[in-house]
Formats: sequence, C-alpha cells, structure tokens
Amino acid sequence: MKQFLDENFLLKGKFAQQLYHEYAKDMPIIDYHCHLPQSQIAANHQFENLTQAWLYGDHYKWRAMRTNGVDESYCTGNKPDFEKFAQWAKTVPYTLRNPLYHWTHLELQRYFDIYELLGDNSAKEIYEEASAKLRTDDYSVRNLLRKMNVAVVCTTDDPADDLKDHQFLKGDFEIPILPAFRPDQAMNIDNVENFKKYVGRIEKAADSNVTNFQSYLDALKSRHDFFATAGCGVSDHGLEEIYAEEYTETLVAQLFDKAMAGQDLTPLEIRQFKSAMLVYFAEWDWEKGWVQQYHLGALRNNNSRMMRVLGPDTGWDSIGDFQQGRALSKFLSRLDRDNKLAKTILYNLNPADNELFATMIGNFNDGSIAGKVQFGSGWWFLDQKDGMTKQMNALSNMGLISRFVGMLTDSRSFLSFPRHEYFRRIICNLFGEEVENGELPNDINWIGKIIQDISFYNARQYFNWQHVGVNEVKVQ
Amino acid sequence: MKQFLDENFLLKGKFAQQLYHEYAKDMPIIDYHCHLPQSQIAANHQFENLTQAWLYGDHYKWRAMRTNGVDESYCTGNKPDFEKFAQWAKTVPYTLRNPLYHWTHLELQRYFDIYELLGDNSAKEIYEEASAKLRTDDYSVRNLLRKMNVAVVCTTDDPADDLKDHQFLKGDFEIPILPAFRPDQAMNIDNVENFKKYVGRIEKAADSNVTNFQSYLDALKSRHDFFATAGCGVSDHGLEEIYAEEYTETLVAQLFDKAMAGQDLTPLEIRQFKSAMLVYFAEWDWEKGWVQQYHLGALRNNNSRMMRVLGPDTGWDSIGDFQQGRALSKFLSRLDRDNKLAKTILYNLNPADNELFATMIGNFNDGSIAGKVQFGSGWWFLDQKDGMTKQMNALSNMGLISRFVGMLTDSRSFLSFPRHEYFRRIICNLFGEEVENGELPNDINWIGKIIQDISFYNARQYFNWQHVGVNEVKVQ
Amino acid sequence: MKQFLDENFLLKGKFAQQLYHEYAKDMPIIDYHCHLPQSQIAANHQFENLTQAWLYGDHYKWRAMRTNGVDESYCTGNKPDFEKFAQWAKTVPYTLRNPLYHWTHLELQRYFDIYELLGDNSAKEIYEEASAKLRTDDYSVRNLLRKMNVAVVCTTDDPADDLKDHQFLKGDFEIPILPAFRPDQAMNIDNVENFKKYVGRIEKAADSNVTNFQSYLDALKSRHDFFATAGCGVSDHGLEEIYAEEYTETLVAQLFDKAMAGQDLTPLEIRQFKSAMLVYFAEWDWEKGWVQQYHLGALRNNNSRMMRVLGPDTGWDSIGDFQQGRALSKFLSRLDRDNKLAKTILYNLNPADNELFATMIGNFNDGSIAGKVQFGSGWWFLDQKDGMTKQMNALSNMGLISRFVGMLTDSRSFLSFPRHEYFRRIICNLFGEEVENGELPNDINWIGKIIQDISFYNARQYFNWQHVGVNEVKVQ
Repeated sequence: MKQFLDENFLLKGKFAQQLYHEYAKDMPIIDYHCHLPQSQIAANHQFENLTQAWLYGDHYKWRAMRTNGVDESYCTGNKPDFEKFAQWAKTVPYTLRNPLYHWTHLELQRYFDIYELLGDNSAKEIYEEASAKLRTDDYSVRNLLRKMNVAVVCTTDDPADDLKDHQFLKGDFEIPILPAFRPDQAMNIDNVENFKKYVGRIEKAADSNVTNFQSYLDALKSRHDFFATAGCGVSDHGLEEIYAEEYTETLVAQLFDKAMAGQDLTPLEIRQFKSAMLVYFAEWDWEKGWVQQYHLGALRNNNSRMMRVLGPDTGWDSIGDFQQGRALSKFLSRLDRDNKLAKTILYNLNPADNELFATMIGNFNDGSIAGKVQFGSGWWFLDQKDGMTKQMNALSNMGLISRFVGMLTDSRSFLSFPRHEYFRRIICNLFGEEVENGELPNDINWIGKIIQDISFYNARQYFNWQHVGVNEVKVQ
Repeated sequence: MKQFLDENFLLKGKFAQQLYHEYAKDMPIIDYHCHLPQSQIAANHQFENLTQAWLYGDHYKWRAMRTNGVDESYCTGNKPDFEKFAQWAKTVPYTLRNPLYHWTHLELQRYFDIYELLGDNSAKEIYEEASAKLRTDDYSVRNLLRKMNVAVVCTTDDPADDLKDHQFLKGDFEIPILPAFRPDQAMNIDNVENFKKYVGRIEKAADSNVTNFQSYLDALKSRHDFFATAGCGVSDHGLEEIYAEEYTETLVAQLFDKAMAGQDLTPLEIRQFKSAMLVYFAEWDWEKGWVQQYHLGALRNNNSRMMRVLGPDTGWDSIGDFQQGRALSKFLSRLDRDNKLAKTILYNLNPADNELFATMIGNFNDGSIAGKVQFGSGWWFLDQKDGMTKQMNALSNMGLISRFVGMLTDSRSFLSFPRHEYFRRIICNLFGEEVENGELPNDINWIGKIIQDISFYNARQYFNWQHVGVNEVKVQ
Repeated sequence: MKQFLDENFLLKGKFAQQLYHEYAKDMPIIDYHCHLPQSQIAANHQFENLTQAWLYGDHYKWRAMRTNGVDESYCTGNKPDFEKFAQWAKTVPYTLRNPLYHWTHLELQRYFDIYELLGDNSAKEIYEEASAKLRTDDYSVRNLLRKMNVAVVCTTDDPADDLKDHQFLKGDFEIPILPAFRPDQAMNIDNVENFKKYVGRIEKAADSNVTNFQSYLDALKSRHDFFATAGCGVSDHGLEEIYAEEYTETLVAQLFDKAMAGQDLTPLEIRQFKSAMLVYFAEWDWEKGWVQQYHLGALRNNNSRMMRVLGPDTGWDSIGDFQQGRALSKFLSRLDRDNKLAKTILYNLNPADNELFATMIGNFNDGSIAGKVQFGSGWWFLDQKDGMTKQMNALSNMGLISRFVGMLTDSRSFLSFPRHEYFRRIICNLFGEEVENGELPNDINWIGKIIQDISFYNARQYFNWQHVGVNEVKVQ
C-alpha cells in the first residue's frame, strides 16, 4: 500500500517517477492565466492567518462547505476567522475524492511543511502553525511566488483598469506580473443600463469622448494599445459560447446607438453585437501578435437569490450544455479567411465537448506555427485528475499533446501553485504508464524532453517570453 | 486469475475487500425508488416459476433477447413459461460484458444458492431448482424482501391511486412499503383526450367536481395530502427535460380550459402548462418536507409499431440528448428564490450530462441541509459498472460523494435487490483502490464510516426514516 | 517493463494474449467500408516509394504535420517525395499518444518488417528500405491485400459511377472488390447549381431523361439496381445528422422543380427534401436486403480558406455537436412502421453521443435478425484505442457486443489494414482483463468464439458473404 500523498503521489511506475522527479519537478512555472490580485503583489501583502489566505474569496471551498451543511455566515459571512477555518476543517474529511482534498494537503505540505491531515481534531494546531508562518517575511505574497519557482504571472484585467500596479511592479519585482485584456463587460450589452455605465468607464479610462460606435471602438482600441505598453500579450474572454452571427458594421453601429438611447436589444441583436465585438477584439490581438483565450461553456449565476445577496463569482456557477461546434467553426474561419487569426487557446468547461474542441483546433492549425491553435487545459470544475486526464487524452488522440502549452492556475489564491505540480504528476504518469505497458517506447530522453516542453518550454515559446525563467531552469 | 463472481467480486485490493465485507455488506437496504407491485406484496405473492419472477415485465431482458434474434412471442408473447426461459438461457452467454450477465448470476447466487452459469445446457436444471424454491414459503415476495435485509421500500404511484395496498400493508408487514407521488399523467396535456380522461380519474379519486384549473389543482392537492397520510414522503417525475417557460396563472387556467374543450395546445402552450404544474407540485413537496425526484433524459416509445402493439415500458426506450442546463437552472432558481425548494434528487440518463448535473446541484446546496440537492445514482441504462462509476466520479470531483444518498433499484422485480450489493462493491472498490494507490489516506474507520453513510445512513437521514432499519444494522 | 509494440502489444494478461494469438489473429479481414481506389486495384498499382503509399491523400498525417508547424507544401504541395517524407519523419516523434504513432510503427512492422522507430535520424534508411520493397511484385496493391488476409473489400461509390473497375475485377482478382452505394450528392440540394450538374450526371449514367422528381427518382433507382448487379450489397451515407422532417411527395416534387429552376431552397425545404430522399434510399435498401450505413456527426470543411484551395477531405473537418436523438428515432421508426427497415449500421463521430447510439439501436432490434441494427465501430477521429474502447463499452453495457459486426478500415490507404489488428488486440484485451479480474468466466472456448464472431463471422453472416474467406480461416 502506497503512503498518502508521498513523493511519488500519482506516479505509478519507475518511469513516471523518473519523468516527474528528473524532468518536470524543477521546471519554472509560467502562469499565463490567473486571477491573482496585483494590488496585493504590489503591496507585498502579508496574510494574518490561514483563513485570509485560503478561505477569503475561494468559492470552491464555499461550495463544499455549503454542500456539507455549513451556514453561509462561515463562508462569505462575518464569523471570526478561526470559526470559519474550523468549519472548513470539519468539512475537509468529507471532501474525499474531491480535488479539494488533494489541493488542501498538497498546499499544507508545499507551503507550510505540514504533513498532518486537516480535520476537526487538527484544525487548531494547523491553523496556528500555518498562520504564524504566514506572518513571517518568508510568506509575503512575493515570497510565496518565489517559493513556487514562478517565472511569470498573467492577471486578468478589464480594459478600463489603469494597470498602475503592473506598472509599479515592473521596476519593483523580478517576476513579471503582466496584465491580460479581458473585455467581457465591453460587449455585455444584455443589460443596457450597465452597458452605458461601462461605456462611461471606458471614456474616462481612454480620456476620449464616445459619441457613437466608432468612437467607442477607438476608445477600446486605445486601451488595447495601452495594455500592450504595460507588457500585456494575452487577451481572455469568459463566454457561454462563441457568437458568430452575421452582421454589418452599419447594423452594429445602430445597435450601439439603440443601447445608448436606453432601449433594450432583442436576443438576436445582442448576439449580433457580441459577434462583431469578438471579431474586433480578435483582429487587434492578431495585429499585435497576442495570444487570445476563450473560456467557454459556463452557465453562471444560477441561484438568483444568492446572486442578489453576494454578486457573481461566489460559487453559484456550473457547467452548461451549449452547442459549440458551428459557431466556433464560423468565428475562427472568418478570422482565418482574412488571415487575421491570432494564436488562440480554447478552454472547454463541459467534458462532453472535449473531442469537439480537440478536433476543432486542428481545423486552424495550418502549419504556420507549431501548435498555433490550442485546446486549453482542464478548467475550473475540470481542474482535477479526471478532468485533466480527459483533456489530455482527447488532445493526444486527436492532436499533438507534445505541442501543448500546458497548465495555468486560473486561481484567485497565492496558495494554488501546487496545481502545476498536480498537473505535472498526472501527465508524467500518463506517459510513464504507457511506457511500462509497451504502448510508448522506453526513451527517457525524448519523453523527458516532451514533458519539459509541456511543463515550460512550449508556453515560453508560444507566448514569446524567451527571456523568462532562464535562471530558474535547473534541468536540460 | 480471480474466480468469476466470487466473494471478492469487483473488489481489487485488501482495503476494498475490508470496506465491503466489514462495513458495507450488512447495511440494510433503503430502496427509496422502485416499481415493485404493492398488490403482490399485500397478497404475499408466490411465483410459480423462475420465468414469472424473472421475465414477466422485465424489458431489460426482452431487449437483450430481441437483439439476440429471439422472437417476440418468447418475450412478451404467450409461449409456455419454460420455452421463454430456455430462450433467455440461450441468450445469457451472449450478454457477456452487459450488466445482465452479472445481475443474472448474482441473483442466482444470492436468492437461490445456484453457482452454475446459466446457458443452454444448464437451463432446465436451473429452472427447476429455482422454480421449486420459489414455490416454497421462504420465497414468498415478503420473504424475498426480508432475505435481502430491506428496511423500507417506496413504490411509484399515480395521484389517482387509492393506495389501499399500502394502507393494508401498514398493519400487516413489518417492512414499510410506502407510496411515492408520481403525477406525470396529471401534466401530460399533449394528448387532449387522454388528459380529459385523466382529469376524470382525479375527480373520482378526490371525490370532487373539477370545473376549472383551480378545482383541478385543488383535487390534485387533496391527493397529495392523502398520499402524505399514507406515509408518502417522496415524489417522482419522469420527464425528457425540465420545463421552465414563463407563464401566468391566468394563462395556465386558459390552457386548461382549452384542453378540456377538446382543443389541442401548441407545443409552446404544452411546455407552459407543464412548467406551471412542475412548480405547483414542487411547492407542495416543499410544504410537506418531502423529497422530490426528477428522472430526466429518456427518449421514450421510439418504435411506433411496437408501441401500438405492446404499449409503453416494454423495452423501446432509449437515451435522449435534450438540452438540460438552462431550464434546470431556471426551475430550481425560481423555487429557491421563493424559499420553496424541497430536498431534490436529479437523475440523469445521458452520461454526457453527468458533469452538468454534478455541478448543477452545487448551485442550490446553500448550507441549510447537508446534501440538500442530490445527483441521483446511475439510472436505467446507466445502472451498471461503467455508468455508476461515471456518476460517482463526477459527483466526487464536483461535489461531495460523502453526502450521497446512494443506491435504489428502480426495478419492477423482487429479484433485483443484489443491485445494491453491486453498487456497494463498486463504491468500495473506488475508495479502496485510491487508498492502495496513495490517493486517499489509509484510514479504515473514516472511509468505512463514509461507505456506511452512502450505503444506508445518509438516505435514512435525508428521507427522515430514522426509525427504519435500526434492528437490522449489524455493524457500527 | 514491456517492450514497445511487441507481439503482446496492448494485451495485458495471459488470457488476452491467448485470445488474440489463438483466436483473433488469423481471422480473415472483411473490410465492409473503405475508400480504397478501385482503379489502383484494377491496375494492380505499384507504388514508387513510401511517400506515395503513405502520404498522398492521407489527411490524418497532414493534420499532424500542420499542427507540428510543417508548411503545406510538404503536405499537399509539390515538394519532392523524399522531402515530404522527411517532414513526416520529423513529425512522428511528436505524435506520441496519437494513434498515428501506433499505426505508423505497426505498418512498418507488418508490411515491411521494419522494427526501427521512425524519426529524423532513421528517415532516409526507412524510406529507402520500404520504397525498394514497394517496387517489388510482392508489394503490388493486390499483394498488399493478400498479405493482410483480406477476404472482401467494399469501396465507396457515387450512384453515377460506372463501376467498370469492379466489373473488371470480378473476373481478374480472387478477392471480391465490391461497390457501395453512397448517394450523398444525390440529396445535396443546398447548392442548387451543383445539384443541377449532379442531376445531369445521373441522367447520363442512367441513360434516362430527367424531367421531374419522379423521373429523377427512377434514374437513381436504376443506378441502385445496377449497383446490385455489380455485387453491391451495402449503401452508405455521410451526414451531419439524420433528417426526419415531415413531407409529402407533392411537396418534394415541387422542391425538386424549384431547384431545377435555379431557385435556392430555404433551410427547412432543404431538410424536407433530404428527409424524403433518405426514406427512398432506405426503402430500396430494404427491398434488396442490403445493409445501410449512416456516418453521423462530422462538421466538415471548417476552414473556408483551405476549402477554396484544396477542396473537401483534405484535413479540415472535425467533430460536431448535432442533436441526434429525436430525428434518428423518427427516421428509423417511420421505416420500421412500414416494415421497411433494412439492416442498419449507425456510426457516431462524437463520443458524447455513444450511449445515445448504443441504446437507439435497441429500439429497432425486434428479434427478427440477431444484431439487425448495429452501433458501428469507432470512426475517423475515434478510430483509436480510447475511441474504440468507449464504443465497445457503450455497446457492451447497453446492447450485445457479442453480435457486433466489428471493424472496418474506412481508409484511403492500402497500408491501413493493421487497424483490424489494432481493433482485435483492444477487444481481446477488454475481454481478457475482465476474465483475469473475475468479471467474466474463465471460458476460453466461449469467449474465443465470441472474439472470432466479432472479428469475422458476424460480419460474414450479416452481409450475406457466406462464400468469402472460407479458405483463409485457419482457426475454428
């Protein structure tokens, strides 16, 4: 019987173990998409206790606690920090087989050298030990990033953001903390009042006067340009599905005027407007050589009661079943036809669509760049062993996993970086088991190279970050 | 090489074996949803032979026989009982890798102590041995339930049913045989003539005069009340998909009048009517603290020729591909918003939607009750090792399997209870293998407790049946 | 550690190994659906080099090369043959975990006795050795078929084809090379101009005068009759989804006239026309006792730029997410109701729909013929270990895999026949592992029989080819 979560966790044979320990483990981390708060990095924030670092803002944990019958006051409410932690600690033993169980103990091990299991009995002791460490200089958020061998971080930012933290960090922190252009609100014309307010924010950020659709586009474009000057090289979109309706520029301009006049758009008009915006954004990404990312398939804010109380991103989202094929094909083909398709990563939230995504990327990999269109790693609810394995298998069977840009945390927490370790263990094991079974050749050099590519080098190449992580690389 | 179907069937390591034999095996069975005929329990029916107990009414077996080229006369026709059995026996060796192969031999072992494989050669001998036993007192249907350590049974009943068998059994049988409120026909307004006839049945059952929608609702509600007095605490719905159209009470009343006037409703009107009825039923369930169950995703009665000849539920149904996400979200959110969401179990027939369901429940688990909204166990075509495993994995990865209310037979047969054993072996093996692999901690007490919870205690708690099964529990 | 791709490749235990080596391996191959060019068989074509045999026309390899960053000129362009091969050889090591990696080395072993791994270093040597062999008489395309123990081949042919190669081969080659009736173009009324041209081709082929829908149908029917005289016993359809709209003969005749008058049809009209055509074709298949095949779920020609340059079938297709259930049910039920449902094989391209397909076939397996309606083997993107395994598991769990007609290459290449070996190894391993685990009985005779049935006998029976392969059978 194997020890729980030991050094060979998830690694079933010698080959997998060698792959992980000799090739994957020491690769630096390129976290090309996450939701870390740059203000805390700028301030080199120090957490007072483990609740603040772990439970504030973590809707994964809240969902588990609620399912376990824990009252909301211990999740998002104003109970004292230790009481919240105690409820979480009580919940942990009920999360067996959920990724939270692995993440929790991996994080205790890697950040705090705590090897005890978290539960009711150990709650107080673990809380005190970890909290005490968090209050030391070694556990400032910058040191947490250094500890994890992070080479670069991309945050997620609205076009209206001023990026002052990113600018400040350029001169103040050796790990690049780069912004990402996420214009979801700029196309969310569903709610006309919110949209108008947002247009106002863009006007202000761009220091321009938006009088019509063209000047709105110009203002957004100037933000895109500004993001580039701040080191941004990636965009990101959070959508239920790609919109690819037919439209004309005249129509879109009229729809903009209609919304600004306070009139609601029809469902079709909303889709037409969004279809147009997606193309504009994509063309700008292409012009600048950026990588564009699309997170598709979430059904959000399902619980209207809790949405009113807590707002979005508080754990009331789930996986949807949107039809993805036709529109994805049309959208990408439109850009490709005009020779304006940027490097693109498609993330899929419903595993039923994995094979659709894994084959869709092949339609636009035209030989110009290795792995130009990517099927992104298992995301959100799929960011666990089964979910990642299914994504890796679909990508392997229907594309080239050797060209995969690999893992990202997508996290709001400074303690989530062991998810890269988790990913690397899983992929080393997939390759390793097939070598042991005679399904892959016993060639540690070549397979080790591929593992390092997926762990680090492919992303570095793809995002044009050839300068990052060079010192940190310990192997190869 | 392991022996076929021995005591460690499906249990790969020592830990899994210990979990099953020491923790799961002796737990009583709570069969909270099935289709057993209560009249046979009331009459303490005795089968004359194995064909009557096994093949009458079992569309699973009929489908296998038909696929094997067996004429309908041996399935639903009037061939002599032994000839039917002989055809089934010939088919069994062709069912390798189908759950029927396992069920068949599990049932022979557990009920009849027959360890031979069923096939052409052994047909006669097995038929005679099992039939002889069936004719003894030990094999009356009540003794079959006792033999399997059944603690409670919920049947499936139309609101118009008089529940006299349930009432009779209350005083005549120590195992509670409880009704479940299944009002599918009460909302099936697709066929206006059938609907009108059904309204007549409800009028009679409720002893009331239905003149409009309100009096129809009142009559149905009085049946709901009556079911409660008969011990009912669960409802059930068999639907292709949840309907969650917008409607007003005025509209629904008009649609009712239209149907009663013999006019067909439009497809949208049908959906609006059903959307309203689902909300009314759900509110009544909430008021009484019942558990409501939704069986979603079946595409029924596909073979119109056989539907004409044999009617529904005779083996011509399959898995559909309905879009489930948006309407499920809207329906549950509407109830939750009004604080009227009862405890709910969602069953999914298309495994492509497992992750959607496993995440949907999390949107409405608000901390008020542990595991308030449940993702039901693998159902019908998914009631087999792969199907159950996929459901368990999705639930584990995206929710808390520790809070799962576990297995039910959903069967029409008194010989189907080993499906609970099948389920328990599979879940013990899932946990056990991960312990052996170091993916779960080696803690037999805690994991044993979770296995017993899923096997028995969670359901007992969830359905408020704290009184049942206490004597039967042999472990813990 | 197992050797890569040795004689027990994919076979994990003794039982699986025995099944494969003693039962499956020597069964002849019935390739009941492929895209081999009959003209090359008629001419007994001899390839000049490995590029011609392997890379000309193989869009699987092109997709992998493009994803690996190889320029189009090396795929479909006019670079010299060896330079193309060198690019492919460089790509192969990047295809680890893709079926191409296995196929490539299986084909090198089985056809050329080359056991080296293909890569940059070995490219020249392997190219020369294989090319030299290809230029010998032993490697004529007829000898390639003989070498693989092929018992019968079905090509894929348009109703307008003259089938002269098939006719010639009847007297000139001992392996039956039979046509298949593939009338996709005959119902593709989407593009009116192309449709009109196609009607002209049918007029000419049928030597008839098409003046209206009835005469069009008559002409097509005469081609169907002609195909039968050439030994054809199977039809095939490549569709996104089944169309099953309501229509009348009058309506369809009008739609035909409308198209012939050069007017575009509406999307609904197109579906109505196709719905009707599918029924006519199916009725003819039923009248002649043919097997009809439906390949469903591909989303084709996604890259409009490359479609313009290269045309269809050049590697820009992918998996779609069409709703399949309702229309499949309606189409099959309409035929069954009129007692005109021919033997039918349904192929599914999106694995999310596997369970839908595996249960749909059961709705129309009515006992008249064992395995009358089949769920076809993993196809195109799914023609790999995971894809085939998922299809086999769905079929096993929801139907009778023992009645499965098994594998087909669906290939354009004479070097693809080891895919049958691949399939047989996978299915032997599935059964073998379950025997070792005690999930199936240890009965080599019976399971060996089922493996041989699936490998060969079931297809021979199903397609009424009792005369083929008798001499070739070495076992049983």
